Amino acid sequence: MPIYVAPVRDTRFVLENVLDIGRYSNLPGFANASPDLIQAILEEAGRFCEEVLQPLNKVGDEVGCKRNDDGSVTTPPGFKEAYQQFCEAGWPTLTAPEEYGGQGLPQVVGTAVSEYILSANHSFEMYQGLTSGAIASLLIKASDELKQTYVPNMVTGRWTGTMNLTEPHCGTDLGLLKTRAEPNDDGSYSITGTKIFISSGEHDLAENIIHLVLAKRTGAPDNVKGISLFVVPKFLVNGDGSVGERNTLSCGALEKKMGIHGNATCVMNYDGAKGWLVGEPEKGLQAMFIMMNAARLGVGLQGLAQGEVAYQNAVAYAKERRQSRALKEQNRDPGAKADPIIVHPDVRRMLMESKAWNEGGRALVLWGALLVDLMRRSQDEAERQQAEDLLGLLTPVIKGYLTDKGFQAAVHAQQVFGGHGYIREQGVEQFVRDARIAQIYEGTNGIQAMDLVGRKLPKDGGRAVRSFFELVGREVAEARQAGDPAGVAEALEPALAELQAATMWLARNAPADPDNAGAAAYAYMDLMGLVCLGWMWLKMAAAASQALADGGENGSFHEAKLNTARFYAERELPLAPALRRKIEAGAETLMKMPAEAF
Amino acid sequence: MPIYVAPVRDTRFVLENVLDIGRYSNLPGFANASPDLIQAILEEAGRFCEEVLQPLNKVGDEVGCKRNDDGSVTTPPGFKEAYQQFCEAGWPTLTAPEEYGGQGLPQVVGTAVSEYILSANHSFEMYQGLTSGAIASLLIKASDELKQTYVPNMVTGRWTGTMNLTEPHCGTDLGLLKTRAEPNDDGSYSITGTKIFISSGEHDLAENIIHLVLAKRTGAPDNVKGISLFVVPKFLVNGDGSVGERNTLSCGALEKKMGIHGNATCVMNYDGAKGWLVGEPEKGLQAMFIMMNAARLGVGLQGLAQGEVAYQNAVAYAKERRQSRALKEQNRDPGAKADPIIVHPDVRRMLMESKAWNEGGRALVLWGALLVDLMRRSQDEAERQQAEDLLGLLTPVIKGYLTDKGFQAAVHAQQVFGGHGYIREQGVEQFVRDARIAQIYEGTNGIQAMDLVGRKLPKDGGRAVRSFFELVGREVAEARQAGDPAGVAEALEPALAELQAATMWLARNAPADPDNAGAAAYAYMDLMGLVCLGWMWLKMAAAASQALADGGENGSFHEAKLNTARFYAERELPLAPALRRKIEAGAETLMKMPAEAF
Repeated sequence: MPIYVAPVRDTRFVLENVLDIGRYSNLPGFANASPDLIQAILEEAGRFCEEVLQPLNKVGDEVGCKRNDDGSVTTPPGFKEAYQQFCEAGWPTLTAPEEYGGQGLPQVVGTAVSEYILSANHSFEMYQGLTSGAIASLLIKASDELKQTYVPNMVTGRWTGTMNLTEPHCGTDLGLLKTRAEPNDDGSYSITGTKIFISSGEHDLAENIIHLVLAKRTGAPDNVKGISLFVVPKFLVNGDGSVGERNTLSCGALEKKMGIHGNATCVMNYDGAKGWLVGEPEKGLQAMFIMMNAARLGVGLQGLAQGEVAYQNAVAYAKERRQSRALKEQNRDPGAKADPIIVHPDVRRMLMESKAWNEGGRALVLWGALLVDLMRRSQDEAERQQAEDLLGLLTPVIKGYLTDKGFQAAVHAQQVFGGHGYIREQGVEQFVRDARIAQIYEGTNGIQAMDLVGRKLPKDGGRAVRSFFELVGREVAEARQAGDPAGVAEALEPALAELQAATMWLARNAPADPDNAGAAAYAYMDLMGLVCLGWMWLKMAAAASQALADGGENGSFHEAKLNTARFYAERELPLAPALRRKIEAGAETLMKMPAEAF
Repeated sequence: MPIYVAPVRDTRFVLENVLDIGRYSNLPGFANASPDLIQAILEEAGRFCEEVLQPLNKVGDEVGCKRNDDGSVTTPPGFKEAYQQFCEAGWPTLTAPEEYGGQGLPQVVGTAVSEYILSANHSFEMYQGLTSGAIASLLIKASDELKQTYVPNMVTGRWTGTMNLTEPHCGTDLGLLKTRAEPNDDGSYSITGTKIFISSGEHDLAENIIHLVLAKRTGAPDNVKGISLFVVPKFLVNGDGSVGERNTLSCGALEKKMGIHGNATCVMNYDGAKGWLVGEPEKGLQAMFIMMNAARLGVGLQGLAQGEVAYQNAVAYAKERRQSRALKEQNRDPGAKADPIIVHPDVRRMLMESKAWNEGGRALVLWGALLVDLMRRSQDEAERQQAEDLLGLLTPVIKGYLTDKGFQAAVHAQQVFGGHGYIREQGVEQFVRDARIAQIYEGTNGIQAMDLVGRKLPKDGGRAVRSFFELVGREVAEARQAGDPAGVAEALEPALAELQAATMWLARNAPADPDNAGAAAYAYMDLMGLVCLGWMWLKMAAAASQALADGGENGSFHEAKLNTARFYAERELPLAPALRRKIEAGAETLMKMPAEAF
């Protein structure tokens, strides 16, 4: 059976030593988040994930969800009880605002906890994860009345939420959507249409399900400018807040998928279902993007989380499985006929790559979550603005790069298992199938790359990317002065220069021919991801080096950080020039091929 | 439903224009293989694959194989009838020697046909593919009596074959195997032990199954030097060649796997089963490696075949699915609200990468198959030797690199489908699951890399790799002189130089510390694969350019070849310096991490 141990020590290293979140204790929410409290939360969450959620991951995959004849959906055995425990322990309330019954803790702490939940059981997390996104949209855009009606029960997890965008003929291109909203006399709307790929669309975990649905109002433009957002509950809510009559919406079918079988992916039919406008009419996409941006960070986290749990299983197997002798006599176990495969350099290569991506990815996504906190809570206008700029710029990178690396780490883990990794019983092939979705949903990684290059780079005259370059450049210079303990600064400096040159190339060549932006986008996202993780390893190397200089326990932990940083510098950062070459190859060869010639 | 069209035009381009197999008409087997006959074979095979085998691919995945209570195994619905048709049409006999009832056609033609079978139905092909490997071992190593007893019925497909290496505790490290062979009085042996992961180990397609089994004879050394190879039939064969009494072996269980559900992967129990020694005692590995080498080329072909069918489906979807507008006005369909996604540069990037890998891979594997023919049939000692050298060197590259790229192409195809690609109904996620096994079995790709670096490079004082460098270097120089129509020579020359420098680095640094070889192996295999495909694109660009100069039909076909060659030169070959950097990073950082620090 697969194993999982929440990497609390690693999380604390990022929060305490790298991000030093203690310095934000003047901010709302952070004041209560003392290091001791955070440690207690992480350990308690870790235990819950290890003991309750992780054992259900395999049964979720094997049994999956079942749609019953009456349209109800039964989640896998054990999910319902676990969800109840999960809510009773208050986990859904962690970062929600106190006025709606939440604990108001920083996003960075919530994100750390979410990683563990996702590693333990990706499918399970999605029932609550989408609820958080729905809450975020409602809090920012909905009327007070709607907020009061829905948010408190969603915060406790008693009700869950969904996001309904996709239709059979439209995914990325939401302007094509056909779901209609006709106004009723009472200010509500009648929603009619079919939505597909609705995660957690129907299930037996919660008393009510609050759907956020994109639709076009009668008479609205039939394009992307005509989209409004509606809240459409499964059960209408009575005046006293209790659950009332059933709304006219239903799950028409469950999709059979490659993975995440424990989550119910529904075809949802809205048949004149009663809904209420969220925010302004025809501004639905804007409201949905609040949810999408939070969701994209969350999906980046999924990539890392799958990479982490897969890695842990590969390490355990590599220490136990004996096969062939170490290449060097001195590394051989004299009493045995074969050595644990962790002695073999190529097995270590896969483990080290995964480790470097996972730990670098964790630092990046927690830093991103801290930006969310700063954007919302900083007292300093300039700090808020910079946080918003950087978060906007890097959200597609966190989503795209971390899910690509998470998938690759899962594939590596399966490879370490050899033939046994292909057998379902071992559980490691599930990580590959589950990790794969994160590269696809919430905007495919190609769409992330286009968002980065087409929207985020040129936004505000390039203010965000300049701010990013300035920040990384300064830290590189500081690290070189401070002695560059793992050689990351030395390797990151030219990689950053390649990224800057590629950015200039885009600035010169994309306006004249937008296909140059499209053709370069993916390699550009890769290059920025490479630099971002290099930057995180720069920070981690400095923190580890400082911790070693300070003495104290965990010497070997910090030595390993330095060594992994060096690995990243030696073997990952040298990819930068090749990525720049791809970017600067331009669109011509790609675009001149007639469609028939493919 | 997934589609598949056998790429006969592409195969013919490689055979006729690139490899120019017409010039070998003086060799046995080739004389009969006129261009017309080859075309007829390819078209007929293509039709059979498209019409009979491909429609069974999905049912194979969904229904899978079933082990019945009596230990028999039922293949998926339709497999049995298709196998009968397959044998009646004589497909298994294509390249088998005429004296055993085969058609004696060149390996290069058989390989071209096998690609189609694999694209159409990977699981189905394995029933016959392993038989071919078993025949090869028997032909070279077995006594005349054994050959006469088994080979003719295996050639027709009436009986199938398997290879039994792996045991629960030993895969790569065959020295650990525990299966025992005790001599009987009649010259046969009693084989006892358990083998796992036995593809096609038990099924209902054939009258008899001929297992080739590795075991240790009583008293033999309990290590890799004590292994012998035995032929162990499911049913003993009577003196008159008919099928006799049941042997004491059985399928104990079927493995539940990530993919290739249509093939029965068996746990095989040998309980004093009667077997006969193949070749000399304690030389079993040598005999098995004949089979393994053929199998490794075949697995490389599987990678390409999965990449090809996945690519074809992605192209069809990208032409049909409309989503968002082309970035440039001039590429927009004025009458529609959205354009086919093939207009988007990042979709084209994925398609072009896959196309470049598939077509480059096809040229490489067919060239490899031609080397098999030359090695066996050339009248010229030097030509035979060079063919053997190059084939030995590049077999691990063909296996490792082509399966990595085939998997990546399948992942790309799934990505082009977006969310729909994650749904089982579309069939594209099956390609990802099926392609994955090829990176794992017949020696994981890490083992291939070690074979390349540890054995094939230093063999005969580096004769093979020198021969390879000389060959590629000469063709690069010739192409530059001839005008380098797609810029491949210009990009390949520095890539080749990086590979040569990396080879020198290994020659200097691996003997002193073998971990340097292990740490460099995978990146070295990648670099050699990159150069090999670049070399194939050099050949294809020259052939396409010549065809265009000659005039005639298919101008757009040859233009597309040139454009794909240019794509490879612009976007793939620039990876070489980064791979060299990885190689030359050495083993230190990788090896100094204590096992507990992972």
